[in-house]
Amino acid sequence: VRVFIVHSHHEPKSFNGAMTREACAALQAAGHDVVVSDLYAMGFNPLSDRRNFVTIHNPDRLHQQAEETYASQQDSFAPDIKAEMDKLFWCDVLIFQFPLWWFGLPAILKGWVDRVFAMGRVYGGGRFYDHGVFAGKRAMCSVTIGGSAPLYSEHGLNGPISSILFPINHGMFYFTGFTVIEPFLVYAPARLSQQDREDHLKRYRERMLELISAPTLSFPKLADYDERRILKSAARTIGCGPSPNADHACS
Amino acid sequence: VRVFIVHSHHEPKSFNGAMTREACAALQAAGHDVVVSDLYAMGFNPLSDRRNFVTIHNPDRLHQQAEETYASQQDSFAPDIKAEMDKLFWCDVLIFQFPLWWFGLPAILKGWVDRVFAMGRVYGGGRFYDHGVFAGKRAMCSVTIGGSAPLYSEHGLNGPISSILFPINHGMFYFTGFTVIEPFLVYAPARLSQQDREDHLKRYRERMLELISAPTLSFPKLADYDERRILKSAARTIGCGPSPNADHACS
Repeated sequence: VRVFIVHSHHEPKSFNGAMTREACAALQAAGHDVVVSDLYAMGFNPLSDRRNFVTIHNPDRLHQQAEETYASQQDSFAPDIKAEMDKLFWCDVLIFQFPLWWFGLPAILKGWVDRVFAMGRVYGGGRFYDHGVFAGKRAMCSVTIGGSAPLYSEHGLNGPISSILFPINHGMFYFTGFTVIEPFLVYAPARLSQQDREDHLKRYRERMLELISAPTLSFPKLADYDERRILKSAARTIGCGPSPNADHACS
Repeated sequence: VRVFIVHSHHEPKSFNGAMTREACAALQAAGHDVVVSDLYAMGFNPLSDRRNFVTIHNPDRLHQQAEETYASQQDSFAPDIKAEMDKLFWCDVLIFQFPLWWFGLPAILKGWVDRVFAMGRVYGGGRFYDHGVFAGKRAMCSVTIGGSAPLYSEHGLNGPISSILFPINHGMFYFTGFTVIEPFLVYAPARLSQQDREDHLKRYRERMLELISAPTLSFPKLADYDERRILKSAARTIGCGPSPNADHACS
């Protein structure tokens, strides 16, 4: 199995750092291939602008998707973007390793998505969701969360974690065709005992060895939508709507 | 009224650019004060790291929140962060002007939040949600969205826009105490006729003049949660749960 970990933490001694090291060790020991993009260590530039491309389609106005489409035709993405695209197309499983910052991806990882998930190469022309470019591959969020689990439960103060991760699981992974593995969550790592910390890392090593069989989230297919792209009532009644809460209901 | 617009688009000729110019003109003509942080034009750095601070609390390990707390005590945030914090504390109304990229904020704006919404100064010690630092102020998303409205309806292919904006409206604005104005949405601006474009800009000018009275989203208060921070059943039955769909139900 070819695994691509996009690692997004500025401190190697963090629990995120420990998780990625454990993942690499476990995968390599089992004979799998792993590639890590350690975004902070690479000095990855998260800003989308004309530097995404080595060509210019329209010099008068920067329209991101038009430039992306042109760069896809000309094979003219900037080298740093091209390198990440190659890893995406190479892998069987994509993992985002990150701390939840302000209920989403750290900016460096959001910028990785903004730049690398380019129209023409990664989506467009009807290639999305179950018809997506990466159909057949799997993807997973591995997330550390500052607060405790009850805060992120269905009626918790911060809102359900499935709602908070919906834009990532549904909007980034599933949108580009990935089958979405249930997220691996570690709550309040800063307050863990050494034993709890080791238990979580053990559980994470085990997850690494079952990436191909781990449970996945269930989302509707394109065929479940009508011509206006609204879920057909039949699909709706089986309860697999795109509402984030459906993650739990259907998986 | 003091209005602070955080503007996040790399192309001044974009519809986002037009919206912010219209907003400024309308507000100034009505005698209000406006400040714009044009993040791309400023070359704002979205990366959180040690450069957030001019002090070092723990040189052995970068723990973001610990450094933020220390910098709050020492008044030692980097000048670019401090300048943005000053604008936040100055304003009555905060506006995020952005194109929806990958179902969230463009990285440059996400990084602005990651860096500027710092523990100690902007939250912490029980100061959050209706007890938040910015209680009494209002905030609003003004968003352009590439796809058409049905895609973002309750059963639309991309998921409800209220779910997609939940991490921003609830997790960033309300978390820090803002009352959240209903988002101003423009779907598929690239496909608008000149007339539609002008109609949207007219509607946006009108919104600018009613920021203090515009309808807001309704979220539960801290007192509606029990000691585990789970919504009390009474609050739950009135239907204002933190589920993103509740935005519509309660507003």
